[in-house]
Amino acid sequence: MGTKPFERDMNYVPDRITKDARTPEHGEVAGELWPVEPGRYRLIAAAACPWANRAIIIRKLLGLEDVISLGMPGPTHDERSWTFDLDPGGKDPVLGIERLQEAYFARIPDYPRGITVPAMVEESTGKLVTNDFPWITHDFSFEWREFHKPDAPDLWPDHLREEMEEVMHRVFTEVNNGVYRCGFAGDQSSYEEAYDRLFAALDWLEERLTDRRYLMGDAITEADVRLFTTLARFDAVYHGHFKCNRNKLTEMPALWGYARDLYQTPGFGETIDFDQIKAHYYVVHDFINPTGVVPKGPDLSVWDEPHGRG
Amino acid sequence: MGTKPFERDMNYVPDRITKDARTPEHGEVAGELWPVEPGRYRLIAAAACPWANRAIIIRKLLGLEDVISLGMPGPTHDERSWTFDLDPGGKDPVLGIERLQEAYFARIPDYPRGITVPAMVEESTGKLVTNDFPWITHDFSFEWREFHKPDAPDLWPDHLREEMEEVMHRVFTEVNNGVYRCGFAGDQSSYEEAYDRLFAALDWLEERLTDRRYLMGDAITEADVRLFTTLARFDAVYHGHFKCNRNKLTEMPALWGYARDLYQTPGFGETIDFDQIKAHYYVVHDFINPTGVVPKGPDLSVWDEPHGRG
Repeated sequence: MGTKPFERDMNYVPDRITKDARTPEHGEVAGELWPVEPGRYRLIAAAACPWANRAIIIRKLLGLEDVISLGMPGPTHDERSWTFDLDPGGKDPVLGIERLQEAYFARIPDYPRGITVPAMVEESTGKLVTNDFPWITHDFSFEWREFHKPDAPDLWPDHLREEMEEVMHRVFTEVNNGVYRCGFAGDQSSYEEAYDRLFAALDWLEERLTDRRYLMGDAITEADVRLFTTLARFDAVYHGHFKCNRNKLTEMPALWGYARDLYQTPGFGETIDFDQIKAHYYVVHDFINPTGVVPKGPDLSVWDEPHGRG
Repeated sequence: MGTKPFERDMNYVPDRITKDARTPEHGEVAGELWPVEPGRYRLIAAAACPWANRAIIIRKLLGLEDVISLGMPGPTHDERSWTFDLDPGGKDPVLGIERLQEAYFARIPDYPRGITVPAMVEESTGKLVTNDFPWITHDFSFEWREFHKPDAPDLWPDHLREEMEEVMHRVFTEVNNGVYRCGFAGDQSSYEEAYDRLFAALDWLEERLTDRRYLMGDAITEADVRLFTTLARFDAVYHGHFKCNRNKLTEMPALWGYARDLYQTPGFGETIDFDQIKAHYYVVHDFINPTGVVPKGPDLSVWDEPHGRG
C-alpha cells in the first residue's frame, strides 16, 4: 500500500501449458511451455479469491476435474501468504506442503513477488508452473480441449473473440481491479477517482445486460465468469470493506438478475463460499479493518431467489 | 475501546434548567438547578452527532431558536474533542472559545470525562451547565413551555408518557446505542451479539411502524426524534462503518418510509448534514478506519423521494 493509487503487480511467471508443449493458438510465449497431460498438474485455488475462483468455475464448466486436480488453501493468511490450513494436518494432501510459498520457492528460490492464486503446480516435482491467471483459464479452453466433457460450452467463440477481449479488458481494469483500486486507495482523491470509474463501468454493464442475457449474448463465455466472481463478492465485501457503496449490487436490476442467473447455473454458485470470502478480506486486510471483526451481514439468501431472466 | 463489549459512559453533569429554578415536573434532581431565561444559555450541538442532533431538531420544532442560541462545532476533532473550526477564526462567536473543552474546564477544572455534545453553556460565564442529553431535550418541552412558538407540538403527551418511556428505552439501548455497540465491539462475539440485538429491535420497529405513522400513533413525539437521528445515519455510516449490514434502511419498507416522512417534515431534514455526518465517523474513528478515507456513497438523494405515508 505504498503508493497512493493502487496498482496491481501484473508480473507473473508466464509459462503456458499447451498441447504437446507446442506454440499456443493464442497469445505470446514469454516463458516456458509445458505439455498438457492429465494428472500432471494441480490447480491451487482459494475459494476466497476472485481470480482463483475464475479457474475453479472454468475447470468445472469444461469438465476438467478428472484431469487437473484441485488444492484449496484456506481463506486467511499471514504475510507469507496462502496456507493449506483447512487440509488434514495443515498440508495439501497431494503436494504435502503447508504453504503455497513452498511451491513457488521450489521453482524459483526466494521468489520475490506475491505468492498468488490461482497457481498451476506440477504434482511430481511440487514446482510452480505458472500463476499467470488470465492465461491459465484461457488455456483450459483452448489447449485442454480434447479432455473437455462432451457437452462442454465454448467459452471463447471465435467470432466473438475480438469483442470479448474489449469487454473483458474494460471489466478487468474498471471492475475486477476497480474494486481493489477503491479499497486500497491511500488517500481521498485516489479513492474518489476509483469509485467514479467503478460505477461508470457498472452503469455501462447494467445497460448492456438490460437487453442481453449474458455479456456476449445468449451464451455464457469466459467474460461472464470473469465478471461473476467480482459481482459475487460485491455486497458481501466490496460494498462495505472497499467502500464501493454508491449502491449494492441488489440495487442494480439487470446486473443483479444476471448475477443470480449465473449463480444458479451449475458450475457457478457451488464454488462460492461467502463465509470464506468475508473472512479473507476482513481478516487479511488489517490495514483496512484493524479489529478483524467480520460483518455478519448482508443477508445472502437472496442469491437463491428467482432471477427472472432467460 | 478498552473493554470488549462497548459500554457508554452515562455519567453526565446532571444539572437541570427549570422554570424559576424550581423542582422540575419530571425526573430526579441530581445536580444544581438553573432558571429558564431567554438569551442566557447557548446550546452547543454538532450537526454530525446523533445525540446533539436531537436537541437541534427539538429546539426547532418547539420554536426556541430566539431564546436559546446555537453554537455548532465542526464534524471532526482530535483527542481533545469538539472544536469550533467552522466558525470565523476558529472560535465560537458568542463564547469566544476554540474548544468545547474550555467550557467544561470553566465549570469543572480538569473535567475527567468525555467532552460531549449536546451541552448547555451559560453565555455570560462560558461555563458548562449540563451535558445530560436526555434531560436537555425533555426540559425544552416542559420547562421552556412558555417560550414555545404558538403552534408548537406536544412532544410528550401526558397520556402516552409511560408507553413512550418504554419505547424510548428500548430504542436507546438497542438502536441508538446498539449501532455503537456493533461498531465499537472489540471482538467477533461481542459484535455478533450486538448485531443480533440491533436487528431484532429494527424488526420490532418495522412491525410497529407498519400500522402506525409515528412511533406513538398519529402525532410526532420526542420518541420519533430520538429514533430519527439514528436512522438518518444508518445507510450513510452505520451500515458500513459500524458493520450494521444485515440490510440497508432502504430495504425495510415501513422504517424507510417513516424515516423519509420525518426527514421531509420541517425541523428534521434541514438539520441533517450528510457530509458532516460521514466526515465525523470516518475521520474521528481512526481505530476503525485507519486510512481516513470517507466513502463517496451511498446515493442520499433517495431521502427526498415520496414516502407514501400519512
